[in-house]
Amino acid sequence: MISRNPQLDANRALQHLLTTEGLPAAILLQILDTAETFMGVTEREVKKVPLLRGKSIFNLFFEPSTRTRTTFEIAAKRLSADVINLNIAVSAQSKGEALLDTVDNLSAMHADMFVVRHSQSGAAHLIARHVQPGIHVINAGDGRHAHPTQALLDMFTIRRYKKEFHNLRVAIIGDILHSRVARSQIHALTTLGVPEVRVIAPKTLLPRQVERLGVHVYHDMRSGLRDVDVLMMLRLQKERMQGAYLPSSEEYFKYYGLTPEKLALARPDAIVMHPGPMNRGVEIDSEVADGHQSVILSQVTYGIAVRMAVMAILAGSQSGDSV
Amino acid sequence: MISRNPQLDANRALQHLLTTEGLPAAILLQILDTAETFMGVTEREVKKVPLLRGKSIFNLFFEPSTRTRTTFEIAAKRLSADVINLNIAVSAQSKGEALLDTVDNLSAMHADMFVVRHSQSGAAHLIARHVQPGIHVINAGDGRHAHPTQALLDMFTIRRYKKEFHNLRVAIIGDILHSRVARSQIHALTTLGVPEVRVIAPKTLLPRQVERLGVHVYHDMRSGLRDVDVLMMLRLQKERMQGAYLPSSEEYFKYYGLTPEKLALARPDAIVMHPGPMNRGVEIDSEVADGHQSVILSQVTYGIAVRMAVMAILAGSQSGDSV
Amino acid sequence: MISRNPQLDANRALQHLLTTEGLPAAILLQILDTAETFMGVTEREVKKVPLLRGKSIFNLFFEPSTRTRTTFEIAAKRLSADVINLNIAVSAQSKGEALLDTVDNLSAMHADMFVVRHSQSGAAHLIARHVQPGIHVINAGDGRHAHPTQALLDMFTIRRYKKEFHNLRVAIIGDILHSRVARSQIHALTTLGVPEVRVIAPKTLLPRQVERLGVHVYHDMRSGLRDVDVLMMLRLQKERMQGAYLPSSEEYFKYYGLTPEKLALARPDAIVMHPGPMNRGVEIDSEVADGHQSVILSQVTYGIAVRMAVMAILAGSQSGDSV
Repeated sequence: MISRNPQLDANRALQHLLTTEGLPAAILLQILDTAETFMGVTEREVKKVPLLRGKSIFNLFFEPSTRTRTTFEIAAKRLSADVINLNIAVSAQSKGEALLDTVDNLSAMHADMFVVRHSQSGAAHLIARHVQPGIHVINAGDGRHAHPTQALLDMFTIRRYKKEFHNLRVAIIGDILHSRVARSQIHALTTLGVPEVRVIAPKTLLPRQVERLGVHVYHDMRSGLRDVDVLMMLRLQKERMQGAYLPSSEEYFKYYGLTPEKLALARPDAIVMHPGPMNRGVEIDSEVADGHQSVILSQVTYGIAVRMAVMAILAGSQSGDSV
Repeated sequence: MISRNPQLDANRALQHLLTTEGLPAAILLQILDTAETFMGVTEREVKKVPLLRGKSIFNLFFEPSTRTRTTFEIAAKRLSADVINLNIAVSAQSKGEALLDTVDNLSAMHADMFVVRHSQSGAAHLIARHVQPGIHVINAGDGRHAHPTQALLDMFTIRRYKKEFHNLRVAIIGDILHSRVARSQIHALTTLGVPEVRVIAPKTLLPRQVERLGVHVYHDMRSGLRDVDVLMMLRLQKERMQGAYLPSSEEYFKYYGLTPEKLALARPDAIVMHPGPMNRGVEIDSEVADGHQSVILSQVTYGIAVRMAVMAILAGSQSGDSV
Repeated sequence: MISRNPQLDANRALQHLLTTEGLPAAILLQILDTAETFMGVTEREVKKVPLLRGKSIFNLFFEPSTRTRTTFEIAAKRLSADVINLNIAVSAQSKGEALLDTVDNLSAMHADMFVVRHSQSGAAHLIARHVQPGIHVINAGDGRHAHPTQALLDMFTIRRYKKEFHNLRVAIIGDILHSRVARSQIHALTTLGVPEVRVIAPKTLLPRQVERLGVHVYHDMRSGLRDVDVLMMLRLQKERMQGAYLPSSEEYFKYYGLTPEKLALARPDAIVMHPGPMNRGVEIDSEVADGHQSVILSQVTYGIAVRMAVMAILAGSQSGDSV
């Protein structure tokens, strides 16, 4: 049987990480399990393993993001890879060189892996379809489409704190409409067997027919948060805070900002997550962000291990390892 | 005999690579031969050799060029050097610090090598004359003057595909006037014994008295391409496409764009080269750029090996090795 | 006795380097002595020691400075650390993420050290107070407040050329008012026992009550320079050269620019220092800058060894080594 999923090779091993949509649970769990093995590396004196020594990993950022670029750069360096950062918006692209010509050029330099961030949905897929076998593509966020490593580190976080997925009630709260993070989270949660995924947002920040993704829709925080085990907050982009989507950030905070009072409606051992960077006082109150139920900084720590795991698995798949 | 060529030391070993002009054939061939030995490195599992471990190489880019900077960065990292990227346009230079003070400062930090890109012709020469013995300068493009590593990778490409230089007809096509690449190519081709070098361009894009460089001038693609073995296309800078030099890019493509029809006038085994990034539909048709006679991506691959070779030879010349 | 100095841990070992103010002489001398041991490293063939292998050092630059960032990057790489450069002005910060959230995030990635440059005085202190034990902060310049590694490399330079501190007459000349360098120099010189520190500047470029720092104030170069052993020139920021502070840069040069004539008033073996980048013809004449009494490039060389020393000492202090 030949896989039609562009993320899997003929042996159904991961060859690109583009989206959590359509990835089998076995692959998601392989990534989480591999990440566990890297947790030790980042805590020891010499935070480095030679797994990817001599590999060339390109951070291809067509959209600026110091934060995300940094996490991939650290993960790659801790695997001993050579990392080259390319901020394309400001150089080659402005010379009119097309996306695929750029990729072809870097591939010709014997690139091993591309970490791609792009403002257009589908950019990472386009590159993955285009590159030679043996070159791997990781989507670090494409338009409103997907941000799979963020979703994977979220799953890792949930598993670390909640052990199992099959008995959880998870709520994703905020700007679902514009969020690649939310899409990737929903697919991962569903695949890993979370029985109840809720989305909580005003109508203007929900995609049409979002129910088709298998989620329950709430417009009211107070009913949506009742008895949930995991709260996944979303960042509210500044540009949504006025105009057609929302009356004001104060108004948003009043209805959808996570305060201690609203958090009290969830289960007492519920955890609070946020992909960062936070808008304190807009989508989350500082008391919650810094409170004992917050696992936001753990997400960041786990994010390095998860990205190391993805890179190590992709590099290993060259040799045709099957899952 | 003491050499007056600033690129050669007293033993006539390469100490700086500033231009292909005046470099003896022995040096050019030494670089090409050394590059051959590095071709294997970039294809193996661990793409790294420890030749330049502990050396500090500075990419001094006074003119932005992600593409060129990347090739030098990869070459240096595959030689295990420490690479420091400096984009000077945006910082020290704007504080009024003079070019040579910048170089003196970095030299005082025990720099081993400077890779210099500058919009002014002669900048790399100026720096090479100024630095202490033991510090090496590589010109990565200065104004309209020279771009020797590009020309060297072009020679490497020609030799790989055509084996010999002494029986070739080579045409350089496009904006000769503003091209540092063309100047460096012409000098290298001539030195390596190519018997017939043609330039093909409209009058407005040719330097005055270009014949003095030993080339044959053609204004018409159809006569200029007849029976050539190698076609070296040049990039047409966007800023030339309107105004005094050219009526329009469509008009340019009609007369000087390389199409399959025009390519058919060359020898059937002719190869097509381009330094990149290409303007598809301006100087080259996509069918040719991606066609079976195109060796454009091979140029990129060879470019890494050639730059590794130049760096390795320069680093070795410290110990006074003679050619 | 528990130390109240945020730079020292309970064993009075250096845990952060924020300012030279309040640092005991023993710590200053420990840094200078350790820097001596690194002088050899930067001169040998392989300029690298594995002391900080696997450590993650973040260059957190909220204010651009290619020059200073480069010195820290080289120092860290020669200690074999992994270095990640973050220019925060252009990315996360502009998304509204607060300074401390940025630091928390990077800390969660298991950062070992932050090198911080910020336009606001106190930024590095704020970060140092905030980070977990085991994470070290180096102030690479905060507002008008402090620039301790610059002052330390100046002390190293003075000791190299003058052997002792206790018999010196040192003059700091120029824009004392806006200079974090001057403040850090004054504290270091005083702590190390220099008996006479002079500041020479026009009234508009002196802080009020500067005498309280233990310095002698001169408004006239000719009297201030008489018999000094060390001249520490300051950079005059372009933005001071017109308006309220100074009539013009020509006028400034006339009265406060260091010329051979003025230098002749100092002791014949006096050394001339400048933190760079120099404004030739404004605060210093080229004949002096490039003359035999200038040690300006030695300062740059020593700066790498001093920064390596600071990083090595900080990394060592994790294990609780006492001074």
